[in-house]
Amino acid sequence: MKFKKIIAYNIDRTKNLDFQSWKKIEILGNKLTFVPKDYPKLRKELADTDCLLVAFGTNIVKEDIDSAPQLKYIGVLATAFGKIDVLHAKKKKVVVSNLKGYSTESVAEFVIAAILEHIRGLEEGKRRGKSGNYSEVGITATEIKDKIFGVVGLGTIGQRVAEIAFGFGADVRYWSKNRKNNFEKRGVRYETFENLTSKADIISINLAQTKDTEKIFNKKVFQKVKSGAIIINTAPMELVDISGLEQRLKNKDITFILDHSDEMVKEDIEKLSKYKNCIIYPPIAYVSKEAAENRKRIFIQNIEAFLKGKPENIVNP
Amino acid sequence: MKFKKIIAYNIDRTKNLDFQSWKKIEILGNKLTFVPKDYPKLRKELADTDCLLVAFGTNIVKEDIDSAPQLKYIGVLATAFGKIDVLHAKKKKVVVSNLKGYSTESVAEFVIAAILEHIRGLEEGKRRGKSGNYSEVGITATEIKDKIFGVVGLGTIGQRVAEIAFGFGADVRYWSKNRKNNFEKRGVRYETFENLTSKADIISINLAQTKDTEKIFNKKVFQKVKSGAIIINTAPMELVDISGLEQRLKNKDITFILDHSDEMVKEDIEKLSKYKNCIIYPPIAYVSKEAAENRKRIFIQNIEAFLKGKPENIVNP
Repeated sequence: MKFKKIIAYNIDRTKNLDFQSWKKIEILGNKLTFVPKDYPKLRKELADTDCLLVAFGTNIVKEDIDSAPQLKYIGVLATAFGKIDVLHAKKKKVVVSNLKGYSTESVAEFVIAAILEHIRGLEEGKRRGKSGNYSEVGITATEIKDKIFGVVGLGTIGQRVAEIAFGFGADVRYWSKNRKNNFEKRGVRYETFENLTSKADIISINLAQTKDTEKIFNKKVFQKVKSGAIIINTAPMELVDISGLEQRLKNKDITFILDHSDEMVKEDIEKLSKYKNCIIYPPIAYVSKEAAENRKRIFIQNIEAFLKGKPENIVNP
Repeated sequence: MKFKKIIAYNIDRTKNLDFQSWKKIEILGNKLTFVPKDYPKLRKELADTDCLLVAFGTNIVKEDIDSAPQLKYIGVLATAFGKIDVLHAKKKKVVVSNLKGYSTESVAEFVIAAILEHIRGLEEGKRRGKSGNYSEVGITATEIKDKIFGVVGLGTIGQRVAEIAFGFGADVRYWSKNRKNNFEKRGVRYETFENLTSKADIISINLAQTKDTEKIFNKKVFQKVKSGAIIINTAPMELVDISGLEQRLKNKDITFILDHSDEMVKEDIEKLSKYKNCIIYPPIAYVSKEAAENRKRIFIQNIEAFLKGKPENIVNP
């Protein structure tokens, strides 16, 4: 089976995906049309489309879906799909698939990388080494082993973070909306959100953003974080109350690490960048060669799987 | 039981150990005497000594031991004891104890830290973040997962490196003088030295320096290392043939990471520091608060254990 018409909407032909991938997608439809973002005639284009492919952060509202009576499939070139009306798509029997898990490993390893970089003083160590200064004096370090390592949100990424931290011999504990018995059996202890965030030496935030989790890290939570703790957030910064975080950063007794997201309010980033104990990386947590390969592979596999009648990674089942 | 006379030789009272520790050691003998390095009357001092404590890298030759007929115990404030004639000590029934394993965790975590720092482009990421540049473009990264992770030398430190790498989901393999069945059962595959060093994507050198292992990483070995491989050495650089390493570094297709040691020949360091793909850290692998605590604790426990008739960490059993 093939699609009649595939629309690639808000996807840059060269930037977002490579030539080889488009060649593979091309043969899955009779026609492949590229439609730029905010194209005024999008809905007219959608009229005879049965397959819609969209980039990260693309808006697909009810009316867009209604304008595509033949639409069967929406493929999202990202994990996040918050700007697509997936419930309305479901009502219209349109399957929406995303790139679930393509960067799980990349993000989980980055979490550990950024923690170690910090607690081992690697920046200073490298700087000294480069300048021919091989003195270790004044470089202090701590270990992950035996530390209380709190994973907030034990989803796909949180689970991998927990497993890796476990390999280090950390005292791994978690809080998640749902209890995970298989992890508890392996010695990862459940804690309430309040207990976890106030007891942990290291906190990795791996929560999904929902109405319930927005600003869950508020002033009160930050005030109770252990002195000397390290918090790393590779999840959306919408989970964090910025002024609450700022207040605690001023005490200079905790470290907050994040990787920047284009979704962040510019003023918030500017505020945080003033604090030496707030380490801001470009959005590199999801950046790895392996993740880039997974991304292409899963995007194409999703389309093929749908055509074979066995859709995968459905976000609106 | 107490010692009659404890000599702390070549140990700086304030730099090498803290006040609290000396207080604890003081009560283990009737007398505690500090003797500086190369003190001409050392052997005279040793004449009535039953306990000798020495710092890292201290020479204790046959004649020193012979000049101390009452000597029962030598406590080394280090893991390495190569400059002490431990066999002659054994002949004279002198127990020599070291700080076995005090920095195992610190070194093993550093190995992983330095690898991740490199493969995730953290230096560049942090630099950009600090300057307000939040673009990830051009930062490339790879993952540890599924990589062939070769541990050369599966001793105490190598075992911990292997366990942590296993938590990352690496394909961990090892070479060691002796096969370790318990590790093989857990999926860590044995390879010959030649196969391991030519197949691995990541190589962690954790071998002890002996006559057999000196310059084991020679030109031939380096030539066969996989293109793109990362080698990290936290063991003595005596294991490495510097000019063989240099030749391969010139190809620019491997990365070598080491932490500097005072034992290294200055010219060798100068040679290596010319290569961008050779990352030289100050000797920070063993630096952690936990290791520093272990060091003090084990040093004192060793003395106490000997006095109780149950000596620990004996290097000349």
